Amino acid sequence: MKKLINAVDTVLAESLAGFCAAHADLVVLGEAGKYIRRAGLKPGKVALVSGGGAGHEPLHAGFVGHGMLDAACPGQVFTSPTPDQMLAASEAVDTGAGVLYIVKNYEGDVMNFDMAVEMASGEALSVLVHDDVAVEASTFSAGRRGVAGTLVVEKILGAAAEAGMDLPGLKALGERVVAAIRSMGVALSSCTVPAVGKPTFELGEDEMEMGVGIHGEPGRRRVKLASADAIAAEMLGTMLDDRGGAAGNEVLLLVNGFGATPAMELYLMYHAARQYLQSRGLTVVRSLVGNYVTSLDMAGCSLSLGWLDEEMLGHWDAPVHTPALRVGM
Amino acid sequence: MKKLINAVDTVLAESLAGFCAAHADLVVLGEAGKYIRRAGLKPGKVALVSGGGAGHEPLHAGFVGHGMLDAACPGQVFTSPTPDQMLAASEAVDTGAGVLYIVKNYEGDVMNFDMAVEMASGEALSVLVHDDVAVEASTFSAGRRGVAGTLVVEKILGAAAEAGMDLPGLKALGERVVAAIRSMGVALSSCTVPAVGKPTFELGEDEMEMGVGIHGEPGRRRVKLASADAIAAEMLGTMLDDRGGAAGNEVLLLVNGFGATPAMELYLMYHAARQYLQSRGLTVVRSLVGNYVTSLDMAGCSLSLGWLDEEMLGHWDAPVHTPALRVGM
Repeated sequence: MKKLINAVDTVLAESLAGFCAAHADLVVLGEAGKYIRRAGLKPGKVALVSGGGAGHEPLHAGFVGHGMLDAACPGQVFTSPTPDQMLAASEAVDTGAGVLYIVKNYEGDVMNFDMAVEMASGEALSVLVHDDVAVEASTFSAGRRGVAGTLVVEKILGAAAEAGMDLPGLKALGERVVAAIRSMGVALSSCTVPAVGKPTFELGEDEMEMGVGIHGEPGRRRVKLASADAIAAEMLGTMLDDRGGAAGNEVLLLVNGFGATPAMELYLMYHAARQYLQSRGLTVVRSLVGNYVTSLDMAGCSLSLGWLDEEMLGHWDAPVHTPALRVGM
Repeated sequence: MKKLINAVDTVLAESLAGFCAAHADLVVLGEAGKYIRRAGLKPGKVALVSGGGAGHEPLHAGFVGHGMLDAACPGQVFTSPTPDQMLAASEAVDTGAGVLYIVKNYEGDVMNFDMAVEMASGEALSVLVHDDVAVEASTFSAGRRGVAGTLVVEKILGAAAEAGMDLPGLKALGERVVAAIRSMGVALSSCTVPAVGKPTFELGEDEMEMGVGIHGEPGRRRVKLASADAIAAEMLGTMLDDRGGAAGNEVLLLVNGFGATPAMELYLMYHAARQYLQSRGLTVVRSLVGNYVTSLDMAGCSLSLGWLDEEMLGHWDAPVHTPALRVGM
């Protein structure tokens, strides 16, 4: 295993310490590293809290700040944070209007966030993200997995919360956003979990995993390496079939790198995706390209499509100031 | 070779097409892909033009926009752009106040930009960046190589040009910034040039290349994989020795990923670097962590230190709106 680390059991703590020091104008590390919260809270605003296993950086801590999350709870690599972390985070950021948890659909996360909702002293609700069309259930999830679409949910709800939307309104909007997003990924290499020390799965020199999950979970099939155009066509075709034709022809296109794929390839994939969508009669009205929901050092990417209505587009375009996403401020 | 591409000879063109489509609000692709220029020019402002071989994305095209570059000329992967490209770019963005070329110190780039300066119809000057302390000369360079410090030069000169500084003033400021920056890199894996199809160099399972260049050029020595703390200490110690003690105790710290290293490790390296600097009595007053000057799919990172004076800090903090760097707008 080749990584820039000191020891496997201090990776998370040292990385978080670096992250919070580098972005001390925006975020504060909570007691015992249980959470990362916004440096400046906004009284009366519903607090948005997310979290999950580490290894997907910048998700979630990179999206803490004005116009997005109020706090993020990092578990160890690919391991759910505990209800204790979520309650500590909620206590730190709930200014009286309640807390909405944004949860990716994995069994550990669902169980622990459900427990946090039950144990909350104030009002608390949750939104479950399950945007991955690759498989209907997986190693760690009953039902579809939550993947890169999570950042779209966090951005849109973050702007709505900033604009004063109340807790039930945010939950309802969140569920509409989840219903409007589809994602699918492909891996050219496995990730390596630091504590394990070897690749999660083995891929031949000429193979790729089509439909891979963000923890290296199996996808649909192991196939020969294909061209960018063929990969884009298969992933987008699957999403379009799933979403159905009545959804409209204007989409947000997110090309998300898994951690070890350079920008040059991500932009090439964006080009391939855009060409394919055009051939199917769709227009890309919003775009985002970069490493946003990663899988440690996995090579590969995911594509996400979002059929956003006017309200969602307004929130997507609203100012945001976080370590990993910044628009208009 | 595993890459998200269609064919080796269309990688650059397709990636640029994707890049310019994804950022159509900010940049425009020049005729025949010779350059990428700002969508909106500012009459009377000195035009800043940079460029170099592709494969270092987001450098340089990712830094085209308000407060940074006016145009970037991409060569093929790791190959200098031609004087023809530089002249076409200059013609497209020179609004009468002249052009400053920002050039990384590699023989091909230096030769071609020098030719462009000579052939320019308007006023043209250049600034040469040579911030890499690892080696005094290398495969492609006489003298020190220009590496990640280039982005610091582009940011500071971009803000100064935006504020109305004239051409001789920008050249003088640029040379002062170059003198204030030191960088050094380490590779955990080789990059693979698409047209070559195999790794540029071979590294053992337990080896790293200390002092590597951004094209995979040899560094100082091939050594056993070391801890993040030890790597930070060696790279920063070399820079501090080179810079000398009289330079002051306040520094900008840039942790730059080479393309295949995830944010989790980059922030851990930032933490290690910050701790080391503290132990040497230095304070980090500005920070940047991310993939900015990459080497295709190389795993590893570089550290850069900048001893910026008040004027430079003001320009570093000024608003910027480019595809890869955005502050305050």
